[in-house]
Amino acid sequence: MIEKKIARQSIYIDNVYIKAYSAVAGENESKGFFGKYFDRILEGSDSLFGTKSFEQAEKKMMLESLMLTANKADISFDDIDLFTGGDLLNQIISTAYNARDIKIPFLGLYNACSTICEAVIVASMAISGGFTDNAISAVSSHFGSAERQFRAPNELGTPKPPSAQNTVTASSSILLSSEVSNLRIVSATIGKVIDFGINDANNMGAAMAPSAASTILTHIENREKAVNDYDLIITGDLGNFGSEMLCEMCQKCGYDISEKHLDCGSMMYRKSGKNPYSGGSGCACGASALCSYFLPQMENGKYRRILFCATGALHSPVSIGQGESIPGISHAIEIISK
Amino acid sequence: MIEKKIARQSIYIDNVYIKAYSAVAGENESKGFFGKYFDRILEGSDSLFGTKSFEQAEKKMMLESLMLTANKADISFDDIDLFTGGDLLNQIISTAYNARDIKIPFLGLYNACSTICEAVIVASMAISGGFTDNAISAVSSHFGSAERQFRAPNELGTPKPPSAQNTVTASSSILLSSEVSNLRIVSATIGKVIDFGINDANNMGAAMAPSAASTILTHIENREKAVNDYDLIITGDLGNFGSEMLCEMCQKCGYDISEKHLDCGSMMYRKSGKNPYSGGSGCACGASALCSYFLPQMENGKYRRILFCATGALHSPVSIGQGESIPGISHAIEIISK
Repeated sequence: MIEKKIARQSIYIDNVYIKAYSAVAGENESKGFFGKYFDRILEGSDSLFGTKSFEQAEKKMMLESLMLTANKADISFDDIDLFTGGDLLNQIISTAYNARDIKIPFLGLYNACSTICEAVIVASMAISGGFTDNAISAVSSHFGSAERQFRAPNELGTPKPPSAQNTVTASSSILLSSEVSNLRIVSATIGKVIDFGINDANNMGAAMAPSAASTILTHIENREKAVNDYDLIITGDLGNFGSEMLCEMCQKCGYDISEKHLDCGSMMYRKSGKNPYSGGSGCACGASALCSYFLPQMENGKYRRILFCATGALHSPVSIGQGESIPGISHAIEIISK
Repeated sequence: MIEKKIARQSIYIDNVYIKAYSAVAGENESKGFFGKYFDRILEGSDSLFGTKSFEQAEKKMMLESLMLTANKADISFDDIDLFTGGDLLNQIISTAYNARDIKIPFLGLYNACSTICEAVIVASMAISGGFTDNAISAVSSHFGSAERQFRAPNELGTPKPPSAQNTVTASSSILLSSEVSNLRIVSATIGKVIDFGINDANNMGAAMAPSAASTILTHIENREKAVNDYDLIITGDLGNFGSEMLCEMCQKCGYDISEKHLDCGSMMYRKSGKNPYSGGSGCACGASALCSYFLPQMENGKYRRILFCATGALHSPVSIGQGESIPGISHAIEIISK
């Protein structure tokens, strides 16, 4: 057995390459920073994409992304060994019903908005460990389905504070393989669940920032790297408030990441007419930014080494109602380009 | 890289041993077949175990099992590299809040009642691939929390048909390690999501049986084994109706498993005064039977090789309401004793 453990939480990954990826999104997202980079925009200001419910629309969006990614890699679903993924809906229905339709052996995951990194980590262990030749990882989120499940139905028009974030309507998927390509996953850090006692469903950034700081600094220390070794340190969906918290927390631990840090949530609705409150959030926020903008920029040679840290708030309306807080979890993957 | 893929869906696992395990359960379960084998019975006919809600009771039950297992292995949570697990509650809150409290790097999973096998498979790939030295896998389910989330609150006293199953109030955990012990995980099959169009939340056995047949037969064929090579082929929670369906489906494919097959759901409330309808179900049904009865019997030399197939119904009240069916997923692990 080849030892691939670096230290508790962090692992080396060898032999795992990104073969293809895609991001599809809704109309609101198309007006923001990543708008022109998405592979496909699903049209319809009602965000139903020709289906009868937000849930069905979300499922459809993920299937679009899965098909796009498989097409780009010129592979049929029958030749993919493993499907890892999840979404924000109860019983991860968007992902589970797609797993049924594409018939790939399925490991369903739930770590809230950090699920894209969790999915890539599980898939990478499977490939790097020699268990599968390839794997596809996917996540989705949808403003309509998430709002009514986690907060209040849109029809109520409930006002929101500036710390609130807007769930991103998008889906992304990544095909990983042992076949050499331009982009390689080299290491990862599996997050711990960290709780600073936040219990406001409209302040997810504050719930997630401590876990992001923990995972990012653990990764850098376990890897014996410096902040400057990375071209970018990207977080999934901390939003404006959460990003500020993250940078301050890292600063207090002796790491200044502010020059390297970008948050996909803060960037998502930039330039957009829509009031984004503190930015975007959701499983697909970081994932769609990664697959539409950052990975292509790495292939184009703009960035050589990035640390991508997907951030999740383990928010449950039931447990909040019973007096629990909202803990956070963040997982990080380190990607290099040729 | 050492190739550990047998064929699509099935993998070899080397270097992974079961170091310790435990099962805790509620009062109703203590009166059934596995009653005298559980490590601990949590008392209280209200199933609240001194907490204020079923959800908190479920969380407490899982923590009991996690502590028992770690104690048996004489290991502290700080020395465990990875926690894989899940439960039936939305946002897998029982598992997520325990992950916070025990501070072990966490991969949250959801494949309904097949989650125990999913958790052991992910943990086994992590250990066998050299990514971690050890891992703990846990699941839980609770009659009170599951009924009100998936069907109707107990207080309504809704009558149930004979095909209905009773969600098992229990939790189990398994500590896996690269250190040699009496019990070894040698191979596994990752299930596909299979849908026969069942949409009755009180007939989960029928929703799961096709996926159990698919996973069991795929495993046996990929491993080039015969049914008789296994001392037992155990399913998690098909119940009486689902078990009959499974055996018939296997028969039609040319495999007679009826002499080797046991179902933990059918066994769970046997001898019990409680009306069990078609038997028990839930994440912890198969897991608690495995950890209370089957694994000790293997250590005692009664069984040498078992195929344990946890069966899950991907039931979501929202998607059922929108006209979707309930697909099933089953994962299998093959365990041998010294």
